[in-house]
Amino acid sequence: MDRIERQIIQALKGGELSVYELIDNQDSSLKELLSKLKRLSEEGYIEIAKGKVKLTKKGEEIQNIKNLDRITCRFCQGTGYEINKFFGEILEKYKEITKKRPEAIEKYDQGFISLDGVIRRVEFIYERGDLYGKIFVVGDDDLFSIAAGLTFLPQRILAVDIDERLVNFINKVASEYSLNVESSVYDVQKVLPDEYRGKFDVFVTDPVETIPGIKLFLSRGVSALKGI
Amino acid sequence: MDRIERQIIQALKGGELSVYELIDNQDSSLKELLSKLKRLSEEGYIEIAKGKVKLTKKGEEIQNIKNLDRITCRFCQGTGYEINKFFGEILEKYKEITKKRPEAIEKYDQGFISLDGVIRRVEFIYERGDLYGKIFVVGDDDLFSIAAGLTFLPQRILAVDIDERLVNFINKVASEYSLNVESSVYDVQKVLPDEYRGKFDVFVTDPVETIPGIKLFLSRGVSALKGI
Repeated sequence: MDRIERQIIQALKGGELSVYELIDNQDSSLKELLSKLKRLSEEGYIEIAKGKVKLTKKGEEIQNIKNLDRITCRFCQGTGYEINKFFGEILEKYKEITKKRPEAIEKYDQGFISLDGVIRRVEFIYERGDLYGKIFVVGDDDLFSIAAGLTFLPQRILAVDIDERLVNFINKVASEYSLNVESSVYDVQKVLPDEYRGKFDVFVTDPVETIPGIKLFLSRGVSALKGI
Repeated sequence: MDRIERQIIQALKGGELSVYELIDNQDSSLKELLSKLKRLSEEGYIEIAKGKVKLTKKGEEIQNIKNLDRITCRFCQGTGYEINKFFGEILEKYKEITKKRPEAIEKYDQGFISLDGVIRRVEFIYERGDLYGKIFVVGDDDLFSIAAGLTFLPQRILAVDIDERLVNFINKVASEYSLNVESSVYDVQKVLPDEYRGKFDVFVTDPVETIPGIKLFLSRGVSALKGI
């Protein structure tokens, strides 16, 4: 049994989980996870039904793998970042703004992370000393650009997205709140326009979840960086 | 100004800090940090006196870099790991045990991390699914081996250290508490004995803080791993 399989067993020792919940309890990719689940199921350690995974009797009988209960920090969701007063005020504004955002469209593989999660992401970039320059956002259904813009620290934020509704929404909010944020329609499958090349200090992206998709988003982001 | 210098300025915008405190507020190595401090001082942004660093008037006047107050989680010291009931009980036992440990000796570059920190390190290894096998500890003034042994999950833990006092202490505690832990005297400057080679699943180390030291500790650890 390798460490990924041990991660799966130790998570399930705490009780039945959905495949989706299991993702957060182990370190492999989705593809690897599914192949591990298949193997553990074939060997009779787990049962999978209706997207739920649980240990069989044989799985329960494994003595040397234990579930030691939740260890990730409840206060910061295991991120290590708390939302302090400054960022708490930004979170409130950001919450208000996102209420009116366009709905996620499956066609574009949209689906945003938690509002808190976006603010913690801004904190992380601040902590790294990277919030001050020119920031390029490749795909912005999370409205990261708005959250970062609300700190009034970045020199410039450009968010590109394939979804015109989103681009219009970001530009409208930016104008309303006087943020250093602008947005343009751009499809990552097309070459990065010259006007974006080598112009930014930092890029931010939350790519679609396929290897070619990740490569594409990252390569467009990298092309936008200075000194490349 | 690069991002390391911005990290220094944004930390100092919150008030005077010791060089030691600054280390935690930026990402470069100690050597790089000192060269950045030198440069910022020469350019008149900071003043360094008696190990304390503060902004000069010119530094205070930088408008576009701000200190947004503490953002690392207070509850878990920014680690993302809380100490739950199971690990809380281990922490208590571990605290009792460490009261009697040999004092740190400068000659060996000893100086242990916080007791909480050691327990969180065990949690991290547990979360990775790596606590179950054979663990090799290269230098153990933190008594990590004892903390990990108290979970009774590892199959075997071997802690090697140059300090005979420490080795004796670990073996005494292991015997007293019936832990799967043993300890031997070993100087990382010597080649790893054959009996340790290729025998372990995981190694743990907190090396001395020089590049050659880090390389040496890591290479000894790697040699102890299976399949290398």
